[in-house]
Amino acid sequence: MTMPAPDQDRRRVVIEAVTPEIDGGRFPIKRTVGEEVVVEADIFTDGHDALSAVLLHRHAGETTWRQAPLEELVNDRWRGRFAVDRLGRHLYTVRAWVDHFGTWRRDLEKKVEAGLDVTVDLQAGATTVADAAGRASDEHAAALRSLGRALVDPGTGRQAQVEAAFDRHLADLMAAHPEPDEATTYPRELEVAVDRERARFSAWYELFPRSCVENLAGAAHATLADCGSRLEYVAGMGFDVVYLPPIHPTGRSHRKGPNNVTTASPEDPGSPWAIGSEAGGHDSVEPRLGTLADVRAFIARAEQLNLEVALDLAYQCSPDHPWVKEHPDWFHRRPDGTVRYAENPPKKYEDIYPLNFDTPDWRALWQELARIVFFWIEQGVRIFRVDNPHTKPFAFWEWLIGTVKAEHPDVIFLSEAFTRPKVMYRLAKLGFTQSYTYFAWRNTRWELTEYFTELTDTQAAEFFRPNLWPNTPDILTEYLQTGGRPAFLIRLVLAATLGASYGIYGPAFELLQNQPREPGSEEYLDSEKYQVRRWDLDRRDSLRPVITLINRARRDNRALQSDRGLRFHRVDNEQLICYSKQTEDGENVVIVVVNLDPYHTHHGWVDLDLRALGLDPEHPFQVHDLLSGAHYLWQGPHNYVELDPHTLPAHILRVRRHVRTEQDFSYYM
Amino acid sequence: MTMPAPDQDRRRVVIEAVTPEIDGGRFPIKRTVGEEVVVEADIFTDGHDALSAVLLHRHAGETTWRQAPLEELVNDRWRGRFAVDRLGRHLYTVRAWVDHFGTWRRDLEKKVEAGLDVTVDLQAGATTVADAAGRASDEHAAALRSLGRALVDPGTGRQAQVEAAFDRHLADLMAAHPEPDEATTYPRELEVAVDRERARFSAWYELFPRSCVENLAGAAHATLADCGSRLEYVAGMGFDVVYLPPIHPTGRSHRKGPNNVTTASPEDPGSPWAIGSEAGGHDSVEPRLGTLADVRAFIARAEQLNLEVALDLAYQCSPDHPWVKEHPDWFHRRPDGTVRYAENPPKKYEDIYPLNFDTPDWRALWQELARIVFFWIEQGVRIFRVDNPHTKPFAFWEWLIGTVKAEHPDVIFLSEAFTRPKVMYRLAKLGFTQSYTYFAWRNTRWELTEYFTELTDTQAAEFFRPNLWPNTPDILTEYLQTGGRPAFLIRLVLAATLGASYGIYGPAFELLQNQPREPGSEEYLDSEKYQVRRWDLDRRDSLRPVITLINRARRDNRALQSDRGLRFHRVDNEQLICYSKQTEDGENVVIVVVNLDPYHTHHGWVDLDLRALGLDPEHPFQVHDLLSGAHYLWQGPHNYVELDPHTLPAHILRVRRHVRTEQDFSYYM
Repeated sequence: MTMPAPDQDRRRVVIEAVTPEIDGGRFPIKRTVGEEVVVEADIFTDGHDALSAVLLHRHAGETTWRQAPLEELVNDRWRGRFAVDRLGRHLYTVRAWVDHFGTWRRDLEKKVEAGLDVTVDLQAGATTVADAAGRASDEHAAALRSLGRALVDPGTGRQAQVEAAFDRHLADLMAAHPEPDEATTYPRELEVAVDRERARFSAWYELFPRSCVENLAGAAHATLADCGSRLEYVAGMGFDVVYLPPIHPTGRSHRKGPNNVTTASPEDPGSPWAIGSEAGGHDSVEPRLGTLADVRAFIARAEQLNLEVALDLAYQCSPDHPWVKEHPDWFHRRPDGTVRYAENPPKKYEDIYPLNFDTPDWRALWQELARIVFFWIEQGVRIFRVDNPHTKPFAFWEWLIGTVKAEHPDVIFLSEAFTRPKVMYRLAKLGFTQSYTYFAWRNTRWELTEYFTELTDTQAAEFFRPNLWPNTPDILTEYLQTGGRPAFLIRLVLAATLGASYGIYGPAFELLQNQPREPGSEEYLDSEKYQVRRWDLDRRDSLRPVITLINRARRDNRALQSDRGLRFHRVDNEQLICYSKQTEDGENVVIVVVNLDPYHTHHGWVDLDLRALGLDPEHPFQVHDLLSGAHYLWQGPHNYVELDPHTLPAHILRVRRHVRTEQDFSYYM
Repeated sequence: MTMPAPDQDRRRVVIEAVTPEIDGGRFPIKRTVGEEVVVEADIFTDGHDALSAVLLHRHAGETTWRQAPLEELVNDRWRGRFAVDRLGRHLYTVRAWVDHFGTWRRDLEKKVEAGLDVTVDLQAGATTVADAAGRASDEHAAALRSLGRALVDPGTGRQAQVEAAFDRHLADLMAAHPEPDEATTYPRELEVAVDRERARFSAWYELFPRSCVENLAGAAHATLADCGSRLEYVAGMGFDVVYLPPIHPTGRSHRKGPNNVTTASPEDPGSPWAIGSEAGGHDSVEPRLGTLADVRAFIARAEQLNLEVALDLAYQCSPDHPWVKEHPDWFHRRPDGTVRYAENPPKKYEDIYPLNFDTPDWRALWQELARIVFFWIEQGVRIFRVDNPHTKPFAFWEWLIGTVKAEHPDVIFLSEAFTRPKVMYRLAKLGFTQSYTYFAWRNTRWELTEYFTELTDTQAAEFFRPNLWPNTPDILTEYLQTGGRPAFLIRLVLAATLGASYGIYGPAFELLQNQPREPGSEEYLDSEKYQVRRWDLDRRDSLRPVITLINRARRDNRALQSDRGLRFHRVDNEQLICYSKQTEDGENVVIVVVNLDPYHTHHGWVDLDLRALGLDPEHPFQVHDLLSGAHYLWQGPHNYVELDPHTLPAHILRVRRHVRTEQDFSYYM
């Protein structure tokens, strides 16, 4: 037989198992401006040649790669890092090649050490250098030629020739002129979606503006203009995002009354998620709240207080939404010709019409939905909390978020998808900046440890940014219903320290609202979703002071501003959880201990991983409780803790590292 | 601004995390004819719709997919399986779609259970069925129309209409006519390289034919024709592959003498890996061994004994190889114009010239190297043991093996790459059928457990088929040097039962050769690599009888014929290792216990995972030692073992499951 002629790509270096890489590069990883990306890869070739490798990276708007060094670890694994310095997409990949000069120099060294004759080797080296000179600019070519001649200079001795081989300048010049067409570039350019800092570190406060009436006996429905002092109250606790449920006109048809009853009286405000009335749709403002000008004023007032306003993006309509008449084909029809309302059999939601994202007119619908986002961006909004994204097509979100962020890379989208894990992760991969989580239902030490290990110590950490909510208007957990004030404190500390982003629905949270609509329900009794509520913000048992302390601790400690650097430590009492957060440079270390039992005092011994914390087992270290203000002197891994949930169920301990001074040493001298 | 028009792929179903999949589908997984491929995938969509999914598979030579069902496990994971029924490449992928009819039926069921009115729902169902009828063949269309009418038939009651919705025939017909263009097909077609059974299950015996002289005082150099009774001896022990080091003419220049000395006397045979002389190159036979006809006769004799012959593929040349003159450009040159010999600084191998695989004439060189393989295939060879593949380019191997297997999918290549783990795995991915391993140097229980867990319980098991050698002509381990006969027995049992493929270099192995060339060396004293050896096959302490027993146990127990189904069990003595092998159907279970200490008797309690073994903790079970012939009655997880390395350091226990008979029950009655 005739042999088929080979026609192979013969590049010898293999680059594989590059991390981070999400689904073969289909999705970007996420970072915020200033953060680092640590890249690793398996890099190897046949035989025994030495290799060189670099990490290539650039902003998507740049045309040339920047280089960062890759260093060999063990077992053919290499590592490098680069920082992302601006918003938008960044790209990275890996390049590697056989380092012929390095191989030659390594082998020469071995032969010299073994006392072998290296005449021929020096000649070979001179040839290699001369070849590189041929590829170099005039200036470098002259230098290379001169350095190459030194390897075989008959005028100097063998020792001088050998020393010339190890010249540092020669190595640098050879590295700068590798052989062409031999390098392997990893076939994928991997992406980093770079957001602003708030995407990583944020404290949210959800409120219903219609309840923001200071006068407890006052009018039924507050306006946005009434909300000024409430914004001051929220800012005073140290939050940085104030999130409003939909502020658009609420539908009349099938409007729900208090506690979700199906008949409403004329003054009942209805659920703000039933969007649209004769007053307008998603780009209008509920008249009882005010006007578009009031929204802008609200945003401006918030800004003065260092608060950002997040709006709700709920792509669904009340039967009275203008689109129902203007675009009847944007909705599903039932066989009897009526518009299909929302259902989760056997439950019916007749005040809500879902949109048909797959309508033949889908392009126009999607464009209109995008227009809504751009409209609110125009008004100054940069954060959107997205309602139930998992019931709309994945393709829509990828397109919408991509389209918005191409223009406005500073926009943040929070995914409210309380659904199956893989769907939640998919939405995060498709572009959502932050995501709600299962945190509200993770109460035991085992559950918390498992879940937060998954969120922070697996690939999920590269694309899924958790935002931890102990409560929402839809979620009043059994734990909060039954555990009293200690339960609220416990969940608050966990949310604010396990995650860099957290939020509460207030004032229900700080005012310890824990009555369910009925036993077994996670709905609030007299939920603000269906009625205006009056709140006594000055209640003596309000969590306001401790929230303020916790938010201050978060601002003062960089370790609490990232989801990286979380580590769990053993405690000999199952009701106590201990974990630390630390910055990558190790300069800021916070140790948190929480009593998870809201009923009883617990004590136990924590067993700290001192090595990981960078603590010297031989020296005491001071820990400062940022909640109680107490100082403790700890030493070694084993330290005693005792927490009474009725006073304070948690320590948030800032570690003050022992600093060695003359005095310390004098003790031993 | 004008919104950009969306132009998305709007298919709603996501398929990801398909396993097995090697490097994003770049490489095939491996199976042998008759084996199954179990495929899993994450499959999900937005919202709450029901999904359908199938596994598609076909032989590369077929044009249409065959289908196998995929079943939903938990957490959006689906699983299916198919068997590969012939040699060559098979393909598989996954397809999934929204099951509108299934969703409708599920929701209808919920509403009926809740007692809701389903008039409109039955109408909707009838429309869906009518749509499907429009896509069906005449015969099916009629059936569908009739079944659809039953959903809204005014002549029957509501109950009959609802029952019609759950008609099995309707479900089958609807499943057979899904909505077009809605299905998501996983974007990659994944490959299975299907080999014959010997690729999975083989027992190898390496011998130097030049030493196959039965007369201990006889001639210096045996011929292939002398080897007949040696083949009978090998076959008698139950091996199925006899592997010969290179049988080609050995070079004269720089020929090595006994114990690798650099001067050889005229009668010294030299290393057979220094290939090529005036008598020819890789397609010729060393004259002292015989002729090509003798090779064919040798192969024929082996075949009669159910032995396959494996040849060595060592792509390197002695300085006397015809290619050195005919194709001087196929070799590297040194600056002084001489051909570059092999080096591993500071070691020199002046009797070996490596080939320059990157020569400008590389296509001709590669074609010639492939021709060599096809030449020996012509002579009846189907197994090649490849010498040092890791020092030749990866691209070459992928091309060579691909080219050969396209014509001869039954050919087996064994990779002799004792190098870094990722390089070994890469060679396996590129096409090598089996691979040497680090087994020879894994002696402790921890080392063996770690290594074999990696080889059999990670993705590596999909592409890397270990072939376990306790010794080779290059490897006489310290363990064998120092442990005496017990050490040989221990390593033999481990090799033959931890892996489905194993091999020994004999008669050095069964005759317990353990003298190194010098202390600290893994080279044999008076190595057969450099001299002819006489072997006293009838030595009383030969391992021949026990090897025969072990190979019989392997043939009689399917559990030992696959690398799947390995499980380690706890033993309370660190010197004892216990593991089981079992077939997927659980019908054949073998438990192996080995004393890893060649010096002392050890005893201990094994702690069997009875559940995994399918054993009833309430009933005794018989184990039959296939080495000693003893029978033991064991019960429960904890069973006592005691092993004296000087008699037999191992149990190979076939489990005879308790069979319930009338008698058993009568005991309790």
